[in-house]
Amino acid sequence: MDDRALLNIIKPVCGHDTCSDDCSILKLPCATLVLSTDMLHENSDFPKGMTDWQIGWMSAAVTISDIAAMGAKPVQILLAIGLDYEERLEEIVHGAHDCCQKYSAVYAGGDLDSHNELTIVSTGIGTIIDDLPVRRSGAKPGDLICVTGTLGRAILGLEGEKRFWKDLCEPEPRVEEGVAIRRAGASAMMDISDGLALSLYDIGMESHAGIAIESRKIPIPQKADKSRALHAALFGGGDFELLFCISEENAYDLKIPYTIIGRVKTGHEIMMDGKILEKKGYLHHW
Amino acid sequence: MDDRALLNIIKPVCGHDTCSDDCSILKLPCATLVLSTDMLHENSDFPKGMTDWQIGWMSAAVTISDIAAMGAKPVQILLAIGLDYEERLEEIVHGAHDCCQKYSAVYAGGDLDSHNELTIVSTGIGTIIDDLPVRRSGAKPGDLICVTGTLGRAILGLEGEKRFWKDLCEPEPRVEEGVAIRRAGASAMMDISDGLALSLYDIGMESHAGIAIESRKIPIPQKADKSRALHAALFGGGDFELLFCISEENAYDLKIPYTIIGRVKTGHEIMMDGKILEKKGYLHHW
Repeated sequence: MDDRALLNIIKPVCGHDTCSDDCSILKLPCATLVLSTDMLHENSDFPKGMTDWQIGWMSAAVTISDIAAMGAKPVQILLAIGLDYEERLEEIVHGAHDCCQKYSAVYAGGDLDSHNELTIVSTGIGTIIDDLPVRRSGAKPGDLICVTGTLGRAILGLEGEKRFWKDLCEPEPRVEEGVAIRRAGASAMMDISDGLALSLYDIGMESHAGIAIESRKIPIPQKADKSRALHAALFGGGDFELLFCISEENAYDLKIPYTIIGRVKTGHEIMMDGKILEKKGYLHHW
Repeated sequence: MDDRALLNIIKPVCGHDTCSDDCSILKLPCATLVLSTDMLHENSDFPKGMTDWQIGWMSAAVTISDIAAMGAKPVQILLAIGLDYEERLEEIVHGAHDCCQKYSAVYAGGDLDSHNELTIVSTGIGTIIDDLPVRRSGAKPGDLICVTGTLGRAILGLEGEKRFWKDLCEPEPRVEEGVAIRRAGASAMMDISDGLALSLYDIGMESHAGIAIESRKIPIPQKADKSRALHAALFGGGDFELLFCISEENAYDLKIPYTIIGRVKTGHEIMMDGKILEKKGYLHHW
């Protein structure tokens, strides 16, 4: 079974609506909060050659990206660090702190534990004042499907392209972009850290909508092998870009760079170039 | 090195004041939030014989206890579950949900990962309206030192006393008590899940104060071997009771059951029965 299948055990307990986005949501009279938690560990998430500083950076970045994906501003990040060797702690902590600082969040401590395998869980809280978070469930037929940035860089870096190593190890969550996308009135949003294909399926499922994209429109890096880069973008994961749906009208107001890759449709099929898109990406298996 | 020593690497980065309590604090115009994260894993935290339902319960309870220790009400709990065998998930999730429900918190999902060793990080958010959290740093010479409940049960359960097995595996965080203690005007508070002795040292250090307690006043279970129970209470951990400091005047207003075990003093020594109390308890070592 994979983790999206196992979610079917959790969703009936927590409530489908409660755990179907990048973050949970908590409404207070003065703000809406979003809350996310993400587990990373050595064997599956930290490529060999990554520094401990980068491990700290990435640990904070995954959660900041989830907060950005709701259109919220990150406020506070906590790390629960299951540490294998005590010597690693200092660089990890500095990496996390530097990432938080870049995105104006406070790294506010957390928990420290010993563990056979370095395991870091970052948790973050983000806020939205006078507006609601953008969820996965609001896409409507006719909306544009858009992405920020260029995709596939993380996997190309993992596969040995040196110019993308930093993209893999020091991902840059799209916080400003997420806020701008929310303000422009996007109907749905999530990050694509598990790959574009799975993310399209997630948005389609939550919005009860179909999606049609064109492969030639997917923004891949210049001078990369096109087929390899496209495969990395669709099925690889590790890119901290945002996937969002927005009406044509609202897209006029959006001042950040983005790329239109398709349209939301009626039905429930996720299509690319007129064919069903394979549903695969970064998944855990048991 | 132990985890309290390693905290000296984290504190200069996060700021001493930011990470010196059971929770971090976030002030909003309409509420003060407290946020806590706690890592548990099979080898060190889940005794053999514990059910998966109890593992889920305990995972939620540790964080709810940290929130209670600030005098806050738990609102939302997330679990990042690093799962070894998929068959375990359902019971874990139900245990966590039942614990959250008992304390009026919402179990709002989290993250799911595969891991060689079952590793669960629970994160929680609590709120306080129109008041401030109770921290470890406010104890003043002359304050009473008090605890809720009877101590040592968890370790006695771990050591084979069947009547305490449930206390070990299904701890009951003191949420109502924590709120009542805050409202009565306690000067300092924390939970004693790492043992009473370490907790006294934590409060003494954060409050720049000394403490003197009397062993005969420590509430231990009836019909237990006194010396063994006292050792469990002081140095064992696993009890989800609250340790707090409060002025005599404010203590009159406190309507919950509690036991006075000593006084806050000037200086910095943590004493029991006129001698320095050994500084040991539940610590991780590298």
